[in-house]
Amino acid sequence: MIKTPYLLFLGDAPDMLAAKVAIGIRDWRPENAVGQLCLPGCGADLGLRELTLAGAKAAGAKTLVIGVANRGGVISAKWKEVLIAALAMGYDLASGLHNLLRNEADLVAAAHEYGRTLHDVRIPSVEYPIANGEKRSGKRCLPVGTDCSVGKMYTAMAMEREMTERGMKATFRATGQTGILITGDGVPLDAVIADFMAGSIEFLTPDNDDDHWDLIEGQGSLFHVSYSGVTLALVHGGQPDALILCHEPTRTHMRGLPGYQLPTLERLRDTALPLAQVANPECRVVGISINTQHMNEADARAYLAEVSQRMDLPATDPYRFGASVLVDALEAI
Amino acid sequence: MIKTPYLLFLGDAPDMLAAKVAIGIRDWRPENAVGQLCLPGCGADLGLRELTLAGAKAAGAKTLVIGVANRGGVISAKWKEVLIAALAMGYDLASGLHNLLRNEADLVAAAHEYGRTLHDVRIPSVEYPIANGEKRSGKRCLPVGTDCSVGKMYTAMAMEREMTERGMKATFRATGQTGILITGDGVPLDAVIADFMAGSIEFLTPDNDDDHWDLIEGQGSLFHVSYSGVTLALVHGGQPDALILCHEPTRTHMRGLPGYQLPTLERLRDTALPLAQVANPECRVVGISINTQHMNEADARAYLAEVSQRMDLPATDPYRFGASVLVDALEAI
Repeated sequence: MIKTPYLLFLGDAPDMLAAKVAIGIRDWRPENAVGQLCLPGCGADLGLRELTLAGAKAAGAKTLVIGVANRGGVISAKWKEVLIAALAMGYDLASGLHNLLRNEADLVAAAHEYGRTLHDVRIPSVEYPIANGEKRSGKRCLPVGTDCSVGKMYTAMAMEREMTERGMKATFRATGQTGILITGDGVPLDAVIADFMAGSIEFLTPDNDDDHWDLIEGQGSLFHVSYSGVTLALVHGGQPDALILCHEPTRTHMRGLPGYQLPTLERLRDTALPLAQVANPECRVVGISINTQHMNEADARAYLAEVSQRMDLPATDPYRFGASVLVDALEAI
Repeated sequence: MIKTPYLLFLGDAPDMLAAKVAIGIRDWRPENAVGQLCLPGCGADLGLRELTLAGAKAAGAKTLVIGVANRGGVISAKWKEVLIAALAMGYDLASGLHNLLRNEADLVAAAHEYGRTLHDVRIPSVEYPIANGEKRSGKRCLPVGTDCSVGKMYTAMAMEREMTERGMKATFRATGQTGILITGDGVPLDAVIADFMAGSIEFLTPDNDDDHWDLIEGQGSLFHVSYSGVTLALVHGGQPDALILCHEPTRTHMRGLPGYQLPTLERLRDTALPLAQVANPECRVVGISINTQHMNEADARAYLAEVSQRMDLPATDPYRFGASVLVDALEAI
């Protein structure tokens, strides 16, 4: 577990596009961020308090989270200066960068000297078991997508928030680096060894109260040939009681695969549900989450109404219009 | 690639059950084995020439292959003596043991001293790419199972042999440790990092002659919740033109999962084929391979006839009755 709250390091990020992790933390766990720290030339701004290392420490921050992608895949000397100063001041560091903190000799030396921890969330820190398929108590909901990057994480996050507001027991379970940094814990599923994928998800979503819901972050798509195996491990390791179908209607082909068309929502339903029922015969599809960011509001609402009627399921864009119809569907189970 | 031919090290294996790897090599690549080497107390016998290290070297052996499981997960002092002597004599070592040769300091030192290679086939030796899903030339056949360990490797091996005898272009492609040791090359798929699983299979089965067939070793099962993700990566990375359905009719539950029933062959077909067609719309199911080892011959033949008629597909036990009907089906494509 990564210690919270965080100070969000934005470095010299050129723009907000580079700050996906920091934005996720601000949007979904604002209580985890005491403020932001920019270097000169930074083009990103979360609208949080700009704090120094010392100021954030005084405000309670325990971990400096690298909330941006770095340029050229190198941790620059300018960054290093701040990171080492943070370690000296008692911060842990957390990062989802491809190049690992643990591979930087000066950071390792400083962490050792000051007794701090370097969290590289791309790398599993646990030896996961092989999945045993045994039925666990509690309930689980998994968003599955017609493609990668269609809003599965935001769907689970938005549902968790709505459920918490209603007083329901709900926990978002992160399966990717952004989700792990946002919540401070999770499984970096894409970096797990093949044999242990499903087991890592069983580990992530253990026995729980009968009325508790895990909202499991989805990964990949059963129809995305690069990552489909990761998705099926999630479906079988998660043994979901409820599936949410996720889709982005304006996409012209599968992400990164120009020759591949997206499946219909019907095909996603008819593929994912029987596979999920292998692990949990009670599983059902309860709703549809549409990423409407490239549609105007009228088009978005019309699309949702059409899809909802056609599939006989509640449909929403949980980020834009709220997750209440999806949570209603879980409550009805 | 592991250098062939081999001397097969049987150590002090208590019985033939421990010698699965060596048996596989003897059965499927007899030309790869110049002989066997037993220690006192060995209860396994492949029926090959018993050779000393020196004798096998004179007969051309280049690699000493550990063809048996070890007791208690430890490489014993008695084994070490032989392994180090082999390195000194110019042998490489190859092993599929859980405990790795590379983690034994004395073996590493000896390999270094004598300039030899230690092959731990459980560990990938290549940085595989992420799958790109692009259509490759040549043809590919993949056995898929109702469960793990139903004869998928033997099916692919038997088909390759039959095809080679007919003068067809065919290559068995190993995806597990036994297959890798048998053939000297392959991908240890269960040890590959999740994101690179499908890419490793694209790497394993590259562009080839239009009339060349890869016979890809299957792994796991789409219905086995512990390993299904590995199987789907194989289906999508392999982009097969032909699927063979594999089944063991006497099994009462999924291997290692007492609460899980095996699917029917019909359900396997209806699940695997649409998923395979995501990567290759031309894919079809061409035949059925039944592991009849626990049935007498009359029952086996009756079962094959019934299944063949019911599914309208050729069916055989390729190990017991030959793979010719399956190869006929490939030739018809």
